[in-house]
Amino acid sequence: MASFHDWAREVASKMERALSDVLPAANAPPQRLHAAMRYATLGGGKRVRPMLACAAGALTDAPFERLKIAGAAVEIIHAYSLIHDDLPCMDDDVLRRGRPTCHIEFDEATALLAGDALQALAFDLVAGNVLSDDAATQLDLVRLFAHACGSHGMAGGQAIDLANTGMSITLPELEFMHILKTGALIRASVLLGAGCGRALDEDGRKRLDQYARCVGLAFQVVDDILDCESNTEKLGKTVGKDQEANKPTYVSLMGMAPAKRFADELLADALQALQAFDARADRLRQLAEFIVRREH
Amino acid sequence: MASFHDWAREVASKMERALSDVLPAANAPPQRLHAAMRYATLGGGKRVRPMLACAAGALTDAPFERLKIAGAAVEIIHAYSLIHDDLPCMDDDVLRRGRPTCHIEFDEATALLAGDALQALAFDLVAGNVLSDDAATQLDLVRLFAHACGSHGMAGGQAIDLANTGMSITLPELEFMHILKTGALIRASVLLGAGCGRALDEDGRKRLDQYARCVGLAFQVVDDILDCESNTEKLGKTVGKDQEANKPTYVSLMGMAPAKRFADELLADALQALQAFDARADRLRQLAEFIVRREH
Repeated sequence: MASFHDWAREVASKMERALSDVLPAANAPPQRLHAAMRYATLGGGKRVRPMLACAAGALTDAPFERLKIAGAAVEIIHAYSLIHDDLPCMDDDVLRRGRPTCHIEFDEATALLAGDALQALAFDLVAGNVLSDDAATQLDLVRLFAHACGSHGMAGGQAIDLANTGMSITLPELEFMHILKTGALIRASVLLGAGCGRALDEDGRKRLDQYARCVGLAFQVVDDILDCESNTEKLGKTVGKDQEANKPTYVSLMGMAPAKRFADELLADALQALQAFDARADRLRQLAEFIVRREH
Repeated sequence: MASFHDWAREVASKMERALSDVLPAANAPPQRLHAAMRYATLGGGKRVRPMLACAAGALTDAPFERLKIAGAAVEIIHAYSLIHDDLPCMDDDVLRRGRPTCHIEFDEATALLAGDALQALAFDLVAGNVLSDDAATQLDLVRLFAHACGSHGMAGGQAIDLANTGMSITLPELEFMHILKTGALIRASVLLGAGCGRALDEDGRKRLDQYARCVGLAFQVVDDILDCESNTEKLGKTVGKDQEANKPTYVSLMGMAPAKRFADELLADALQALQAFDARADRLRQLAEFIVRREH
């Protein structure tokens, strides 16, 4: 078995190619829109969501031909959410992945439409390619994916995040926000990836879901920690913005040491949920460790 | 057979209820987001796209239980596109359907996210409800729908519209823009509605597609005519904006009389395409007449 580092590098490289393949060509009209879609999606990012899809697919022996579509779709949704999140009416950010944000490099209207078109592309991909031997199962995956993107998922989480800025909220309220804002798409990445392979039994599905929920939350807790402790160069985006914007975070609500302990507990829970699985769950195990131990 | 007027009123009323049912409840969190989604979708609009879906469904004996989902999905995409189109970075409009636009009634960030969440909801609907007896056929419908919304459809058309503002373009360029901006979703409305019923043969599909393309283009030509000839009160949105923004239109490129002749020709072509169908195509025929003869 290749080391996690090598596997992750290979997945990232294959996903970069897959994304480039599924995105509209930059010379196809409307060129400026397509250029913005490619700019915001390619050439950066940790590709954590496609990696989760691929790791979950390893558990169910899913072919990479399918996983690359599932991975591209979740990454494309992530890219669109970052474009819209960076817009002046939202976080008003100028730096992302060490480069100017999409509306700075292009313009606001193009950035808005690039996000809109990326969302549609993601659904085009998961409906227009074979992800499952059974079309009804695939429809379920598309529905789960759409639900994770909507007002009960990512977009809803963004709205709550916005409403929370400058407010004093409780830890359960913060958790509810993050389960929607980050958790839903991370969960969808895992379940979509697994859905590309053989069916899990009821118990297996529940365990995988539990893993996905723990990892989703851990991801955000670590994000909050890094926003305090890292620096702009390492992170490739403006740090300390949460504090500056007076946004409640796990660090501001719990304190740094308890936030780190919480991340460790979530990692332990995620690994616990995988215990009944064999070595095919190893990539998922390694990925959970990576997400909690990462430095950017 | 009920008169077209009665049929249209009944469909509009049933669709209003269907939309209200499928939209998230206003008291479910995040409340402000859900309120904005409902505000922008309910209580206005001609509901032309759901009517096209229902009329096409009549041709294939599709049950209303399915058509209401298809109709709601295309109308929800239309509503999201209007929210984003009205934003300050796009058309910067304050009036829509006789009421303040979404970002005026709420705020820009909420309007942005309401549009995003509406797009996801539309895909949730078409994947999460039975539209066809055959799941593989339904996946095809979802793909067709997603394609119509993306950079090769509606979002792409918006981008070209933006790029064209203040530019001198040719008639074929204007047509290309509108086929994407308005035509793609209108075509999807027809094909989605028809797809909810019995399968058409190859020839039938081609004829219906031809009808949908003609109606989609006619719709935009008439829109351009009305933007010149109607008034703000009748239209419920700011008129004369195209001219003011120096946007190329069918009227500015062809002149008023040739634009009206062109709309008539497209209507004749649409009706011609339906000739081989029996009386079940009558709603589609009436709807084409309505779209070309409407005064708002």
